[in-house]
This record gives sequence, C-alpha cells and structure tokens, in this order.
Amino acid sequence: MGDIEIAQKNKMERIAALAKEKLGISEEHLEPYGHYKAKISLDYLETLKERPDGKLILVTAISPTPAGEGKTTTSVGLTDALNRIGKKAAVCLREPSLGPCFGMKGGAAGGGYAQVVPMEDINLHFTGDFHAIGLANNLLAAMVDNHIHHGNSLAIDQRRVVWRRVVDMNDRALREITVALGGMSNGFPRTDGFDIVVASEVMAIFCLATSLGELKERLGNIIVGYTRKREPIRARELNAHGAMTVLLKDAFQPNLVQTLEGNMAFIHGGPFANIAHGCNSVIATQSALKLADYVVTEAGFGADLGAEKFIDIKCRKSGLKPDASVVVATIRALKYHGGADVKELEQENLDALEKGIKNLERHVRNVREHWGLPCVVAINRFSADTQAEIDLLRQKLGHLQVEVVLAEHWAKGGAGAEELAHAVVDTIDKCPASFQLTYEDDLPLWQKMETLAKKIYSASEVVADTKIRAQVKRLQDAGFGDYPICVAKTQYSFSTDAKLLGAPEDHVVKVREVRLAAGAEFVIMICGDIMTMPGLPKVPAAERIDLDENGTVVGLF
Amino acid sequence: MGDIEIAQKNKMERIAALAKEKLGISEEHLEPYGHYKAKISLDYLETLKERPDGKLILVTAISPTPAGEGKTTTSVGLTDALNRIGKKAAVCLREPSLGPCFGMKGGAAGGGYAQVVPMEDINLHFTGDFHAIGLANNLLAAMVDNHIHHGNSLAIDQRRVVWRRVVDMNDRALREITVALGGMSNGFPRTDGFDIVVASEVMAIFCLATSLGELKERLGNIIVGYTRKREPIRARELNAHGAMTVLLKDAFQPNLVQTLEGNMAFIHGGPFANIAHGCNSVIATQSALKLADYVVTEAGFGADLGAEKFIDIKCRKSGLKPDASVVVATIRALKYHGGADVKELEQENLDALEKGIKNLERHVRNVREHWGLPCVVAINRFSADTQAEIDLLRQKLGHLQVEVVLAEHWAKGGAGAEELAHAVVDTIDKCPASFQLTYEDDLPLWQKMETLAKKIYSASEVVADTKIRAQVKRLQDAGFGDYPICVAKTQYSFSTDAKLLGAPEDHVVKVREVRLAAGAEFVIMICGDIMTMPGLPKVPAAERIDLDENGTVVGLF
Repeated sequence: MGDIEIAQKNKMERIAALAKEKLGISEEHLEPYGHYKAKISLDYLETLKERPDGKLILVTAISPTPAGEGKTTTSVGLTDALNRIGKKAAVCLREPSLGPCFGMKGGAAGGGYAQVVPMEDINLHFTGDFHAIGLANNLLAAMVDNHIHHGNSLAIDQRRVVWRRVVDMNDRALREITVALGGMSNGFPRTDGFDIVVASEVMAIFCLATSLGELKERLGNIIVGYTRKREPIRARELNAHGAMTVLLKDAFQPNLVQTLEGNMAFIHGGPFANIAHGCNSVIATQSALKLADYVVTEAGFGADLGAEKFIDIKCRKSGLKPDASVVVATIRALKYHGGADVKELEQENLDALEKGIKNLERHVRNVREHWGLPCVVAINRFSADTQAEIDLLRQKLGHLQVEVVLAEHWAKGGAGAEELAHAVVDTIDKCPASFQLTYEDDLPLWQKMETLAKKIYSASEVVADTKIRAQVKRLQDAGFGDYPICVAKTQYSFSTDAKLLGAPEDHVVKVREVRLAAGAEFVIMICGDIMTMPGLPKVPAAERIDLDENGTVVGLF
Repeated sequence: MGDIEIAQKNKMERIAALAKEKLGISEEHLEPYGHYKAKISLDYLETLKERPDGKLILVTAISPTPAGEGKTTTSVGLTDALNRIGKKAAVCLREPSLGPCFGMKGGAAGGGYAQVVPMEDINLHFTGDFHAIGLANNLLAAMVDNHIHHGNSLAIDQRRVVWRRVVDMNDRALREITVALGGMSNGFPRTDGFDIVVASEVMAIFCLATSLGELKERLGNIIVGYTRKREPIRARELNAHGAMTVLLKDAFQPNLVQTLEGNMAFIHGGPFANIAHGCNSVIATQSALKLADYVVTEAGFGADLGAEKFIDIKCRKSGLKPDASVVVATIRALKYHGGADVKELEQENLDALEKGIKNLERHVRNVREHWGLPCVVAINRFSADTQAEIDLLRQKLGHLQVEVVLAEHWAKGGAGAEELAHAVVDTIDKCPASFQLTYEDDLPLWQKMETLAKKIYSASEVVADTKIRAQVKRLQDAGFGDYPICVAKTQYSFSTDAKLLGAPEDHVVKVREVRLAAGAEFVIMICGDIMTMPGLPKVPAAERIDLDENGTVVGLF
C-alpha cells in the first residue's frame, strides 16, 4: 500500500478536538483551515510566554544517500511512540515545497505508518503559507523594477539588482531570463531569474523571526541591490516591508495537524537547507515547547549541514537549546557509504558496512563533542537488514557508548519506535546536555568558516580566490562580521566532493561564492554548484497525479 | 471613515452560524477558513440539484467613467435591502485580484456601508483560490518547456508556444521576457511573458465549469501551442490536466462570506472582463440560486461588455437565466458622458447630463430589447446631485417607462436601498423576462461579431485585415464556429475609441487580433490594446499598506 493510500484510509480526528485533548488549546485560539488543519493565534501564543519549556529532541542523520535514511518518518514515529509510553509529545516539521511534488519525488510528509495527515493537503497548498511567502518576495521584486522605471531616485544600479523572483514550481526555463523587454513602457531590460519559493530569503526570515514586529524589521533589512558606488539599497527604502508583512501576517501563525496516530504536529515554514538553514520556523518550535513536554524536530540533510545550521543559525538566534539528538541511519545507507553498489544494498555486506559506519561515527562524535548533545542512534529498519549486520554495527559503535536502537515505525507506526522513545527519554533524564555553538558571534567570518570546516567537516583547510577573500573582508568591515555563516555545499559528503563518501579527512574546502542575507542575518558561503531552481524530470510526477472519479487524489506519494 | 475602518469596526458573526441561519447549511457541509470564511462542499451542493432556483438579478451599469458608478456597492446594498424587506437574498461577486491591491486602487469588496467582510482577507489571499489557479497555470507552462527540453516528442514549435505564465502581481517587467537562457541545461531559449492571474485561461475555465469532471475536461482542451504544421497541442497530450485539477479541487468549492449586515455573499472566481467573460463562477451562482430566493450578481464594466458576456458566455454555457437587471448609473458619471470635465462633476450641469443620459438610455434599451430582461435603473446617489438633475433624469427616461430609483446604500447600508429592493421585486413579479441570447450558436463567428457590434454597440460595420479574416475563417473551418465570441475592447465607450463617450452610432469596429480559448470555449476578438499585465504606479499603494503596532492592517481601501 502506498503512502497516500495509508493516509487516505486513516480516520482523522477533528483538529480542534485534538488540540484541546492533546495540548489544551481551546477552539477560540485556533483558526481552522478545513476541519483537519488549523493555525494557532499569535495572541494566544503570547500568553504562554511564562510557561516552562518542554524537552527539545533534534532528529538528524548520517550523510544522505540514494538508499534513504528516513529522518521525517523517524521524527513522526518517535513522537507517536513517546505518546504511547505516556509522554505529552509533539513533532515540528518543515512544510513540503509544492513544486517538487510534481517533479521527481511526490509528497513529503513522512511515509508508511509514520505520516502526518491530511497528506494531500500538506503536500499541496496546505494553509497557503508558501503562496504568501512567494507573493511577498515578488511584491518586493515588482517594487524594485517599478522604482527604477519611475525615475530611480535611490540610484539602484540595474546591473547590481540581487533580488530575484520566485515561483513554487520546478521550472528550469525560469532560471535565467531577461526581463522588461518590449519597449519603454515595460521598464529597463536586465538579466534576472526565478528561484523556487523555499530558496527565497523571505522564507528564511519567516522561519527565524519570533514576532510580527521582528518579521517586519528583518524584511526591511533585505538588500535588494546596490548603487553604482556599492551602497546597499534595502527593502525599507522602497517602503515595501510593511505590505510584505501584511501579506505574511496570517501565514506567520504556526500550523497544527496530526500524525496517523492522532498526535500533534506543528508544520510551519520550510527554507532550503543549502543556501538557507533548512529548519521549520522558530515560532513553531517555541510554541510546541510551551505546549508539550517533549518536542521532536528535524533538520535537513546530514548532521554536518542540517544539525549544524539548526544549532548555529536557528538556536543561536532564538535561544533554543536542544536536550538530545537522535542520529538516524539505515544499514543500507551505511553499506553505500562503505562502497556498496546502490543496486546491491539488499545483500549482506559486512565489509562495506564496516567502512560505512565511519560516516555515522563521525556524525555522532560531532553531535556530542562539538555541540554537547547526548545522542541515541536510531537504525531505521529495512527487511533486508541481517542480524550479522546489526551485530557488527553495535559492536563497532561500542566504544562510543551510544545507545543503538532499531526502529520499525515505517511498518508499525509508533509501536515500532517505543524502544527508541524509551532510550531518548532515559538519555535526557540521565545525561544533561552541555549545549554549545560551533563558534562564537565575535569570531571573524573567515575564521568561522575555518572553524566549522575543521571541526565539523574534518577538513584540513579552507581556500578561496583572492576576489572571494576580498568580498569576505568587505562584509567583515561593513559590519556583518557578527553574523553566523550558512554553508551551501553538497549534502552527500563531509567534503565538498559528493563522491567522497564515508568519513573523508584532510580535504580542502573551497569557497566559490559569498552572498549576504541581510534580512535573515547570515552570510552564505557557497562551496559547490547550488541549484535554487530545480527542473522537472523527463516524466514528471505531475503526469500521474490525478483526481479519480470519486474525487480522490491519486499518484501523490 | 475609510472602507477598511468601517469594515474593521463591524462585528462579524461566525460564518457557520450565519450559513445555518440564513441559508440552512449545516456546519458539516462547510470547510472553514478561519471563523469568517468558508467553502461549501461539492458533495452537499450535489444534493441540492432538484431544488427550484431562486430569482437571478443581474447588476450592470452604464459605460464606466473616472467618476465611478458603484456596481459592487449596489449589488451588496440591494442584497442587504432585499433581506431587510423580508426576502431571502444572497449576492454573488467576483474575488478581487491581489496584485492590483498593491497598485492603484487598494481593495475591492464594495465600499462604505455596502461592503463584504472580512475585507482584508477577501482582498489579500482570501481562501487561496487565485494562488491555486496561478499554480495550475504555471505547472502547465513548466510542463510545456520541460517537454520540449526532454526531446519534444509532440513536436511543439517553440515559436508557436501560446501558453504564458502568470503571477498575481502588477509587474510590468514580466510582460515580455526571454526564458531558458544560460545554456543547455536550462532548455531552449524563447520569447515569453507573464500575465496577471485573472487573465489566465485557467481562471475562465474555473469560472465556467459546473463540476470537477468538466473542469478537468476543459483543462485538457487547452491549446498550449502548435506544431510547425499548425496542429494544436493540448494540455491533455502533456498529461497535465489531471494534476492541474488536483491543484484546483479545493479552490473549486464556492466561498461564503458575509455583508456588513450579516447577509450571505458568494465570492468565487474572477476572470478578466476583457479577454475573458468577467463574472464570478457558474458554480457559485448556481449554488446561490438553490439556497436563496433572490440572487444578486454583477458583471464587469458596462452592460455592452459585462452584461453581454454574462449572457452570451456564462448564461449560454450554463443554462442560467436572469429574471431582471439593475442598471447602475451616477449623475456624476452621466455628466461626464455628456462632456463635463472630471474636475467639475460636483457642479450642476443639466446640459451635460441631458447629453450623457443617452449612454444610460442605450444600455437600458439593450438590456430590454436584445436580451429580454425587465430592468430598474439605480441612481447611486452622491451628495452633490441636485434635485433639478434628478428631475431631468427622470423626465428624460420617462418614455422608456423604466423605474428610476435613488439608492443611498454607500452611506446608509441596506436601509438606503430599500426602495430599490421593492422596485426590483415588483418588476420581477409583474414583468416576466423573455430572456434571449444576442446570437445563436450556429451563426458563423464573423457574423456573430457583426451581430453583436450592430445590435449592442450600434456600430455600422466590423472590419479586419485580410490576415485576421483568414484566421477567423480557419477557426470556423477547424470546428470552433459554434463557440461564442468574447470581445476585448475599451470599456469606456460603446465604440472601440475610449474617447467616444455617450452613445456613439455608426462607428466602425476593427478586429485587430483573434485568439482561441479552446478550454474556456470562446473565441476572443481583440479590438484595441489589451493589457494583460498591469504595472504599479509611481507611488504604489503597497507603500502605505502596513501592519500597525496592534497587528491591524492599515492603508488598504
């Protein structure tokens, strides 16, 4: 049975009743979107400020492989399991991007019996947040070109406009375009391009702001372009940030839905994990911590990218402090890291597994040593995993004294992750976190990059062309030195080479490009080719997505 | 007090309670979007099929002028007044387009004390319908370029792609663009452009379909481009229509909101009134007729364009039959039609008024003689109107034996339109409509255009270049001859010259361009410059739209 059929067979409870039962939220504090989705009012959230926070559990993973790891299913399964063993737990996830649904992968709201529902809604328009974010982005873009067209009193250099348009669609034809053709009444022609909505800086800002006031302030700080003298021009100077905030005011309320087992899921915001920080909104995580005793959340990609950004960008800015981490791996993926062919992952291969375990080992070490988080390793079980493989894994990790738990939530729902839930609760009870950031705010930008690369990626050095070094220096001198950095590199390796699997050491990280996100307040160091607008494959998922004669969505998985 | 302040001071009732009280709809048939907006389930609407229809009242107007006429306020005020005099009445309106809100005009949900609320929501994202329509449009566009990129097995001629992208934003820089630049992996470069969402053929289809099945069928019929041999390529051949329907399935449910006086308003769909038919969705109007005894609806622009398309496109296709029409005029606008300067409309000017009345007179004659609808003239009152002007108007229209009623709903709400409500009810009771279309389906396309121009516009002839005539003939021969035509011309005059006010006769209508809307099933005859992507003015409304410190939207009116 596919994910969509499992989800559709599930009998959902009304969200208002569930929110009352599980989290004690009265109906008047919810804005319903249909009967199974709701937004929580900001006024109500304001009243919770004095409550103590629950425990925050970060689900992260080994470096991703084509074999699949299952971070989202583990987050959902763990939450269901925590509830099964009597804990008041909720999960915080990112909203899936609509565009990619029609491309390769179909939906993204967990899978099997560890899903969030209503899955069609979550994967399609949901509560409209991404539409609002896209439009706020595009209003600013229209106001930039409009300002130039009507006299350009701010003297924006048309060659230095850096604010791109966005659309929530995989549309390669929009990556690089020329706009304002067709004569005088259409403005001044220039090169431009569209990104996918999740890549918009508005998305990153939306996910980092803790109030509407802060949201507006940060939107105002966005740099849209520069003058000929390289003076930045901000959204505030175009008077765009007020209207952008108006477009985002409803979206900014966190969304509440349910897992297949009727537990609460906060799904809110979803920035790219490469040029942005890749975690759900701060406001959703903060809200969940006030309302539940255990909050499970996930970060994009492997721990080197996802957990690092969660910690150094999201936690740094918001004051959030995780209490423990779950590092997810699969035997299949570890064999792939150890050199096994993607077509032979079903076969027992102890050699490959032994080599691949080094990837997991390093992520566990990073989580514990560099960020001070106690952790549990969750092996997301597949039927082809052999006992010998599992034994080898346990043996090889023995010296780390980390608990390794097999989890079968995909096939069994929360019941399949009860052991994991117990392990997580025990770990939190027995091992207090001594949480720390990778680097301090006052370290210069370039040293931040070096610290990160050496500590977390095990690189030997960071290099860049003179031009890039000069750019970093300019940002440092211009007062952006206290921003954290956001590394955009391949997620498949600790290094910048996607083919270097396992746990490469002494590799060299080359910074190819630097970008400033003055609203999101981080400096992006690009170490590889980063695609901010995906394309559709030869046969897109859209060709099989349909509404059958009963009005049921088919083909979305 | 501005419209937004009046709207915000209003105490709304919960939509579920109101829908039950006013229309007898139980809560389980509604999908709430917050507490004050809801969608009505299609399954429930299906159960109403056997109920008798209420009376349908079409609100139309004289040719629009900068002085303003007030069709929407009259529709809302009349609905409130009908309820005040004991009738069960509802109003059906178009959804406003979000883009223009940030441009010149601010919101569009009535005005003064004749408004629909929550006005901020209706003017901003509302229930997300336009976002869904925009995305369905853009999914098809992405699939076209993706098909060409991956081998183009349908042999689409890249120079003959006719499907444009859309965005809900006034953004002149996107009118004419070049896409797919940047090398091989981005596809084949070609000229393209964006329209505003309301101009998408998906919007027209959405508003004409009577079921999800018909919606999908029509989406499949969309022609996206042609081969080198001019064979049409349809959305169906790209397998795009199923996924497009999935994107639209929620949006397709009619939206329910309330007037300031707590009466029911169906606000659903909003196609352009020039290259499309400019009326709210058929499904909303049909639903309202099953649920209310009197349904008030409006058509875009003056009666020559708006009412004509309402009748020849919307009614023809759906079988809807209006029972009466209200023609809205203002003394100010009639003086403008009679030559008065726009700055001097506050001054009594009987000469100009007498001349301008000819515009109103012709619209009234068209409504009655050509479409067989009894009508009432509503004079939307302004404080500067003098008694002498009102007397002259009544006297000049005397020979038409049409009731002329003064209405003050803008200032007084429903109480100000009670006389109008009585007049409309009396007219319906006493004068049965003998409804007819302007032309029959089987009249050839060119004769349809001639019939329309002569009957409704009082033109002497229709001309076109040989090339255009040949194109019309090709469409006729290709089997599109039974489609109605959709004229895109200036709304300011009966003629194609915006400066010819009043009631010009014996003018020549020149068809400059012909387009086929194979999904919407009409042939567009373009007789003038039609803008499908507006621009922002020098100081856009967005600059003053903001969220104040209490979280209240300001600057939207």
